[in-house]
Amino acid sequence: MSSEISSRGPADHDVRDQIVIAATEHFSLYGYSKTTVSDLAKAIGFSKAYIYKFFESKQAIGEMICANCLQDIETEIRTAVNEVDGPSEKLRRLFKASVTASLRLFSDDRKLYEIAASAATEQWQAARDYEVRIKALLQDILLEGRQSGDFERKTPIDETATAIYLVLRPYLNPLLLQHNFDHADEAPTHLSSLVLRSLSP
Amino acid sequence: MSSEISSRGPADHDVRDQIVIAATEHFSLYGYSKTTVSDLAKAIGFSKAYIYKFFESKQAIGEMICANCLQDIETEIRTAVNEVDGPSEKLRRLFKASVTASLRLFSDDRKLYEIAASAATEQWQAARDYEVRIKALLQDILLEGRQSGDFERKTPIDETATAIYLVLRPYLNPLLLQHNFDHADEAPTHLSSLVLRSLSP
Repeated sequence: MSSEISSRGPADHDVRDQIVIAATEHFSLYGYSKTTVSDLAKAIGFSKAYIYKFFESKQAIGEMICANCLQDIETEIRTAVNEVDGPSEKLRRLFKASVTASLRLFSDDRKLYEIAASAATEQWQAARDYEVRIKALLQDILLEGRQSGDFERKTPIDETATAIYLVLRPYLNPLLLQHNFDHADEAPTHLSSLVLRSLSP
Repeated sequence: MSSEISSRGPADHDVRDQIVIAATEHFSLYGYSKTTVSDLAKAIGFSKAYIYKFFESKQAIGEMICANCLQDIETEIRTAVNEVDGPSEKLRRLFKASVTASLRLFSDDRKLYEIAASAATEQWQAARDYEVRIKALLQDILLEGRQSGDFERKTPIDETATAIYLVLRPYLNPLLLQHNFDHADEAPTHLSSLVLRSLSP
């Protein structure tokens, strides 16, 4: 048993990647909701049964694509935050880069955005994990600012983090972002300035 | 000419009201998007041509219904704000009542919500006017707080008002609110506390 598992490991990984890459291309051409696993199998040249050996459902494939997309956005946000010094500037960057990176997902690839929207509507695990990681990044910046004396320390940090996350959320969540285009230019500046005023010691 | 206008005035007003009342009922039963002006005319017992004498389009009727709905929400918000003393408590009330009143529109009358959603998507005049009036109410509270010394005066008031409005907007706008249900309970408290921290002198 164990030898079978270990011998299947690396090969499985490659096949999974291959399915995800092909599915990403297929979904981005024809849309996520309109594509069935049968369509996908036909397009890749695998049998439907073979695909089901690696992913239990279309959503499982979508989750993997979504996780990759969100990982790219998160990397872009973290890079932007790490480029600058000081907690205040990092917080400004968090707001600015969240909007820029999320908007890019929307505008570059309307069809992949559809997957992100499904993920947000149905609260897929990938979307929940992403939310947790962005909240953790925010909390790190808050801690840094509290330690350096740049930010106030009276409010419980959980409360501060939750409130700021609620301010940021309409620009991170694809379902909300689509209704916020008109404000996407000015919002990061206005909102991060307001948040920084709320954090002043 | 002038006597014709003045003699038609009050009667026109009554007929317009009659159409709006009947349309509100009809839309709330069958939905706004699915109902045509012909359906409406049939239901009210007027000719389509007669309805077009008073409203140039279905949207014009929808705008009137929407304006009435938004007026009700605004009244509820203003009442809640006026019940309390002091700019800080008024601001808390503005957040709380905005969410409560907007949620009621959504949950009490799913079909009328559909009109509000159209209004927000297509930026109808009624929705824009409502936005302007809520911003004005917010600005009044800010002015009161600046005069009483409760709020800081360094930031230009326009900037403060715009930023706070952006924080409030996801809970006022029906398109955004539908994706914010999970946060509707805790958000007003968290967000108004954050905003009040940002306003401290």
